[in-house]
Amino acid sequence: MVSHTDPIVPILIALVLMACAAAIAGRLMSRFGQAAVLGELLVGVLVSNVGYLYHQPAITVIREGEVVTTIMQTALLQEITVGQAAREVLPPGAQTEQIAKILEGQNGLRVLDIYSFVNQVSRIAIIILLFLVGLETSLTEMREVGTSALMVGILGVVVPLGLGLLVTHLLLADSSFAVHLFTGGILTATSVGITTRVLRDLGQANLPESKIILGAAVIDDVLGLLVLAVVTALVVTGSIHLTNILGITLKAVAFLVGSIGIGMWITPRIVRNLARLELKNMKLLFGVGFAFLLSWLATLAGLATIIGAFAAGLILEHFFDKELQGFSLRDMLSPLESLIVPIFFVLMGLQVKLETFNNSKVVLLALALTLAAITGKLFSGLPVRRTFNRLAIGIGMMPRGEVGLIFAGIGRGLGVVDDSVFASVVIMVIVTTLLTPPLLKLTLTRSLPADSSVSA
Amino acid sequence: MVSHTDPIVPILIALVLMACAAAIAGRLMSRFGQAAVLGELLVGVLVSNVGYLYHQPAITVIREGEVVTTIMQTALLQEITVGQAAREVLPPGAQTEQIAKILEGQNGLRVLDIYSFVNQVSRIAIIILLFLVGLETSLTEMREVGTSALMVGILGVVVPLGLGLLVTHLLLADSSFAVHLFTGGILTATSVGITTRVLRDLGQANLPESKIILGAAVIDDVLGLLVLAVVTALVVTGSIHLTNILGITLKAVAFLVGSIGIGMWITPRIVRNLARLELKNMKLLFGVGFAFLLSWLATLAGLATIIGAFAAGLILEHFFDKELQGFSLRDMLSPLESLIVPIFFVLMGLQVKLETFNNSKVVLLALALTLAAITGKLFSGLPVRRTFNRLAIGIGMMPRGEVGLIFAGIGRGLGVVDDSVFASVVIMVIVTTLLTPPLLKLTLTRSLPADSSVSA
Repeated sequence: MVSHTDPIVPILIALVLMACAAAIAGRLMSRFGQAAVLGELLVGVLVSNVGYLYHQPAITVIREGEVVTTIMQTALLQEITVGQAAREVLPPGAQTEQIAKILEGQNGLRVLDIYSFVNQVSRIAIIILLFLVGLETSLTEMREVGTSALMVGILGVVVPLGLGLLVTHLLLADSSFAVHLFTGGILTATSVGITTRVLRDLGQANLPESKIILGAAVIDDVLGLLVLAVVTALVVTGSIHLTNILGITLKAVAFLVGSIGIGMWITPRIVRNLARLELKNMKLLFGVGFAFLLSWLATLAGLATIIGAFAAGLILEHFFDKELQGFSLRDMLSPLESLIVPIFFVLMGLQVKLETFNNSKVVLLALALTLAAITGKLFSGLPVRRTFNRLAIGIGMMPRGEVGLIFAGIGRGLGVVDDSVFASVVIMVIVTTLLTPPLLKLTLTRSLPADSSVSA
Repeated sequence: MVSHTDPIVPILIALVLMACAAAIAGRLMSRFGQAAVLGELLVGVLVSNVGYLYHQPAITVIREGEVVTTIMQTALLQEITVGQAAREVLPPGAQTEQIAKILEGQNGLRVLDIYSFVNQVSRIAIIILLFLVGLETSLTEMREVGTSALMVGILGVVVPLGLGLLVTHLLLADSSFAVHLFTGGILTATSVGITTRVLRDLGQANLPESKIILGAAVIDDVLGLLVLAVVTALVVTGSIHLTNILGITLKAVAFLVGSIGIGMWITPRIVRNLARLELKNMKLLFGVGFAFLLSWLATLAGLATIIGAFAAGLILEHFFDKELQGFSLRDMLSPLESLIVPIFFVLMGLQVKLETFNNSKVVLLALALTLAAITGKLFSGLPVRRTFNRLAIGIGMMPRGEVGLIFAGIGRGLGVVDDSVFASVVIMVIVTTLLTPPLLKLTLTRSLPADSSVSA
């Protein structure tokens, strides 16, 4: 493990740099009343493009994202070097030649090591993140906000999806329907976290509007995950028929309902029996192990890992911390979360190639997608009664945050989200996340007394 | 991220299986009054050899250890496939053919993914582990036990090293002096953790003997790390001269003294200034970041990463948790530690190929090294006054635990520890760790009143 042989050192440096950049940028954002995630994304975009401009080798390679994995696999399986694989996988050009040279060079393998590790850690990070979101989502509480939230949630998925299909049909006419569908799907999912934090900061989390927003955002998450499941399966199987869509939807619903139903019935018994064994760290191990297990089962059902992780959180929420003593699972996972989740957002930011906006078509796409994302969610407030602040509800549903990015990342892995769509989506996420806090403050504080607490 | 494309799923499964096996085996051991680490090692050995017997592909590959990395690198850099690389790197034979076939097969790349990730996580785990050991080591307290501990520590390094050199000189006559030196070095380091736990369990942590043992074990750790630094540098540079040894020793001492001196003087100022920024999770981020930073600096000085991590812990110990509010660093890192550190021990166990003991020479080597490790430490009690229980001190210094394994792992990476030496070292670690608790109980409870509390 001396300097020129220990492979962990470049990874350590990358992790420290990413975590520090994320912490500082996140802090800067929250000082401006913005979500920390925004800072993490923006610092990624900044470092990626400045690093590329100055030919920083590791950044030049890492901003290619999942393609790096494809290059490695190609080199391992075919009788070619990793440099030749880069030339084979990437489109010919000066940029590809640059990447091939870096990979063939003295530090090429180190850069690959860094990408692989950071990429895998990011994937684990979003599993932990969605598990924690599930852990904080109470199914009982959701029943209270009832039909209002359900209607807002459904409209908040259908309208953005429709608008997304329209935009991509017009602007990406050459792409397949799968690409249109996936891009539309990315526009659907509201990020609960950002809205929650803004409402808490305003001291208005108990407003009826706030409860509807939070309930709808969760329903939205579930519906968004369903859309993702369907769209992903369609992309993978390649055929798009109504029976096909219906079948996949049923499978996804069956997995969610089945795993949650069986899980809620069987896990308390298992946990009670395990508790008797007095295993050290049983609570933490079982929690994380259960999240990983359901993530795996989800992929067996053709769904994304994060759907399983979210279901695992929902299942454990209603009994786990009550049943087992000691620190709450949330408290124990919080340090791990704060170390690895920012890595995911920085990595997403790193993959935004600003040079794709040299093309006016891509600029137009980014603008149109952002507009579709905003107006799509503003509509979602319409189905509730006029006595509510419907505009505030629509704005509260606006931020896309992590979920949109996770979707986009999955689309990249599947090959239906290219550089230009990815960059546009990140812009969309940044703008919607950026606009929500000030607009929400404006509409909520303008039209409603601060102590209003009518039940929804 | 559907089932056949998401690369994280096999890794999730491997992590869950390793963590669960470690938890159960660890619990079983502690029921018998043994250290949990023993169970983690043994379950690794068991799974490795049963899995190999039943031709389980992932296990068959992973038990090759660091060689897997070499195979990947060879395939990436040369114009050959990963299967061809396996045939090139490994000695010809049926086993190599089997591994090559697995790597060329449908799941070959997944197995490589699993190995890479688990290996990197293990390396990070031992950095976190040594950082925590440093955090728990108080330099002020060590000054109290004074010269007795110093003498015990020094003798406990010199005698095992000498005996190790003798054994390897006799039994590994064909190997280079570097191999002898490294193997001797592995015998030097006492594991503080196991002895601490046994003494606490017996309620005798305040005996003068106990204080001497703990103090000496820490000095032993530091000396062991120095031996590691020197031996590693000698192996890497290839030349063994007295001036060379002296130079490297000076460099290592300079790094330790310098980093601790400068660190203790400068880090409190930095931390106080950073605290004003009110960064979220600043404490955790700075702690881990500092450990990673010093790990990197250590490699720049030609030392192992763990030396830097240990120094980082020593530096932060005297002010960090007092200066900053909130959970202690120890508490925040404890969940992460309990998730990833067992992975390291299971991985070490997985690399023990029991078939190497088919050779009577290897059995002899394992026996001789174990005997050298035991008697070497028993001598270490001699320099203290006769009024002390010198046998108990010697026994308390016996367990090698994690530090010996970390050394052996580093030696594997450097190519000076082959399969047979590695397997012998693991046996040595298992036996010394196994014998300590019962022997220590026997000597301490037999000869000393339970409430003895004479100052050392």
